[in-house]
Amino acid sequence: MAHPPGMRIALFAVAAAILAAAAPAQAADLAPTAAALRDKALADPTAWAVAESLTTEIGARPQGSPAMDRARDWGVEKLTSLGFVNVHVETFETTSWLRGAESAEIVSPYPQKLQILGLGRSTPTPPGGIEAEVVLFKSLAELMAQPPGSLKGKIAVVTQAMRRTQGIEGYGSGVLPRVIGGSEAAKRGAVAFLVRSVSTDDTRLPHTGGGGATAGIPMAALSTPDADLLERMVTRGQPVRIKLSMDSTFREKAPAYNVVGEIRGREAPDEVVIVGGHLDSWDPGTGAVDDAAGIAITTAAAKLAGAERPRRTIRVVMWGAEEQGGSGDAYAAAHKDEAGKIVVVGESDLGAGEVYNAKLPKGGLGHPAMQAFAAAVTPLKAIVSRQPAAEGGSDTDGLRALGVPVTEFNQDAGRYFDLHHSADDTLDKIDPKELAQNVAVWTAFIYTVADSDIDFRKTAKEAK
Amino acid sequence: MAHPPGMRIALFAVAAAILAAAAPAQAADLAPTAAALRDKALADPTAWAVAESLTTEIGARPQGSPAMDRARDWGVEKLTSLGFVNVHVETFETTSWLRGAESAEIVSPYPQKLQILGLGRSTPTPPGGIEAEVVLFKSLAELMAQPPGSLKGKIAVVTQAMRRTQGIEGYGSGVLPRVIGGSEAAKRGAVAFLVRSVSTDDTRLPHTGGGGATAGIPMAALSTPDADLLERMVTRGQPVRIKLSMDSTFREKAPAYNVVGEIRGREAPDEVVIVGGHLDSWDPGTGAVDDAAGIAITTAAAKLAGAERPRRTIRVVMWGAEEQGGSGDAYAAAHKDEAGKIVVVGESDLGAGEVYNAKLPKGGLGHPAMQAFAAAVTPLKAIVSRQPAAEGGSDTDGLRALGVPVTEFNQDAGRYFDLHHSADDTLDKIDPKELAQNVAVWTAFIYTVADSDIDFRKTAKEAK
Repeated sequence: MAHPPGMRIALFAVAAAILAAAAPAQAADLAPTAAALRDKALADPTAWAVAESLTTEIGARPQGSPAMDRARDWGVEKLTSLGFVNVHVETFETTSWLRGAESAEIVSPYPQKLQILGLGRSTPTPPGGIEAEVVLFKSLAELMAQPPGSLKGKIAVVTQAMRRTQGIEGYGSGVLPRVIGGSEAAKRGAVAFLVRSVSTDDTRLPHTGGGGATAGIPMAALSTPDADLLERMVTRGQPVRIKLSMDSTFREKAPAYNVVGEIRGREAPDEVVIVGGHLDSWDPGTGAVDDAAGIAITTAAAKLAGAERPRRTIRVVMWGAEEQGGSGDAYAAAHKDEAGKIVVVGESDLGAGEVYNAKLPKGGLGHPAMQAFAAAVTPLKAIVSRQPAAEGGSDTDGLRALGVPVTEFNQDAGRYFDLHHSADDTLDKIDPKELAQNVAVWTAFIYTVADSDIDFRKTAKEAK
Repeated sequence: MAHPPGMRIALFAVAAAILAAAAPAQAADLAPTAAALRDKALADPTAWAVAESLTTEIGARPQGSPAMDRARDWGVEKLTSLGFVNVHVETFETTSWLRGAESAEIVSPYPQKLQILGLGRSTPTPPGGIEAEVVLFKSLAELMAQPPGSLKGKIAVVTQAMRRTQGIEGYGSGVLPRVIGGSEAAKRGAVAFLVRSVSTDDTRLPHTGGGGATAGIPMAALSTPDADLLERMVTRGQPVRIKLSMDSTFREKAPAYNVVGEIRGREAPDEVVIVGGHLDSWDPGTGAVDDAAGIAITTAAAKLAGAERPRRTIRVVMWGAEEQGGSGDAYAAAHKDEAGKIVVVGESDLGAGEVYNAKLPKGGLGHPAMQAFAAAVTPLKAIVSRQPAAEGGSDTDGLRALGVPVTEFNQDAGRYFDLHHSADDTLDKIDPKELAQNVAVWTAFIYTVADSDIDFRKTAKEAK
């Protein structure tokens, strides 16, 4: 024993003082501020005001529509008025599919109207519509078991239902009939494709979404009660004929916009923490849970964390074409030279249900800054997972491919898929308290990353 | 004391035997059969099959439509195939209002599409639609406080919300803005009237229903999220302008049909117990809870009770124009000579939620037959109320005015007004177990009335 206990304590105190002076703020310093910010976030009205404003003043804003142009201007104005700097629009090009008039009805044996919504990238029907007999499959697998040519001249219908799960698992599996069913039906000769809405609800509102981009046939989602109706009617054994009329316009390249604002870092302004949601939406609702919520959560959290003037720059990106695809890739392409300085990127795109499981970049949880984050969010009943973030959001894929660490905050999605991509996606479906919990989690995360020197590339290496 | 106890018992036994031979079956005899029928009803598939058939093979069936003609034929076929006799159609005339194309949108300051459904008896807009500024009232009372002429050239909007209640109270009060708001707005010069859907749900499906028959202006229901949206937009202080396009056809007199079937009484076939639901429906859904359920419940219950071949005749009436009005009056007018022989009339028209409180004609509960009924339904958690039935259903009003006793089975309507008059009124919303509870209650009632000599006119007099 070289030194008596008292002296060891004194030495540690000296060492700690030196470290505190020389190094950025770490766990002990970050924790009280992170906790205070969390509490401030829970009472802060910004996120609700942002979601209310976007859904009331813009509403539905599909990529390539006049409403999306208004949403772009709204984003610039909103970030500016909230005190962000370097507010600007980054223009790029991606596809645009816009819905026209649509209708569907059972012609025989029992005439009934059907509630449908065309899928993104669906081709229109000829002007008079098409009428054909239905072949119904209760699962995608049944459709895929059919031989080539076997659906020639038919309307293929898949009525496979999705499972409600707490997280995104139910959708991950349940979305497949919508995404690949149209192409698979077309390969087998079908003249159109109808799919049960990828929905956990029983309302008669259909849920749209991207269909098979290469199907080349009209594709639409049936409301879940209409899918049930078709199943019952087909069971009776008589041929069921449907008339389908769908119109739409498709552009391979249409202007699109990522809207950006920053709070510049105090000490290391070129090191950037990027957070955001997506500004575009599907057309039937008002894009409230998908994704005014994500825009609201990340904008409010960036503002709250930014008010502490942390070391690093906080950047909000409102990605402009998540639903059509392309905004994340465009952002990454425009920022590839900067990628090495992007500390982390996170997208909020699963509604306003509470964060129940936050996944950090690999090895991050071992770092004092993330220990401070975990301590701050424990009272919010947010688990900070030992599993690293796997994928992030659609719009973070491009940066992830450039090696940028991603985070992934799993939200309670129990009701999200009741609403998602349907006319029911409206402001009243956002619970202000749940929204605030999200803001609190993101605020604590942004602050602890931006006011520390955590390097997730390094933690990932060390964790190997 | 004239006789020793043993002898009194013997005398009673003799008296009971004499009564049993001379008089119709009473409580002691009715109770076991009523209980057995209840249990049979709980497991009987008829009601579900009837509701499934009507919603699948016919669907929406507004009065005056081709679908209503098909429903009439369906009713005849269904009653016949279930073994009813004297199956026939009673034709009458009433109004017919049929929806055409409809659309509404906010033009300024923030363009957004609105989800509407025209109200019954609404006038169409001129072909190009109308565009006007909105004046929004949060209650009917606020609208009615406006002076004459004050709404000249405006679109009046009432956003008063209804309260969810177990029974019909929430609707009874909540429906007023829809029923009289249009006329009141028109009196004050409004060019159109929009009302928040009379709904307890938060889906973006509007709920239709009869509007003010004499308003003379276009009238439509907004989905509840759209009513919320308008409130938020108006709060911002800028004029809100709406464009409204509505088409419809109205006929003062169109053919209508009550469909009737009987199970003839064993001993007193001219004494008739009448039960039924209404065959017509509003157009947006498939008329499942309103009122395939009532058709299914009463048809199945009549069949089950009728299988006992009770003394009196059981008659099922599928009233043909409840939503437009007129089917009950037409039935009463056609049967006024028979009215004195109609023992009781009951309509099931509040969906498929469980019966929680059965109200009998005045004084009925004191009669042994109704004691047997009450004993049978106690295990179903149906209260048999000490309060007499007040009103019955819309279609029983005509017979009630002729002095026919009415019954009234209050159902749990907690979810009914989520669905009522909207596209969401589909078969999947009927819970088979709740449907079966209704059938069990009605079966026990029909049997105990039809196989006894209960005279509700007499019980009412004695109860005074």
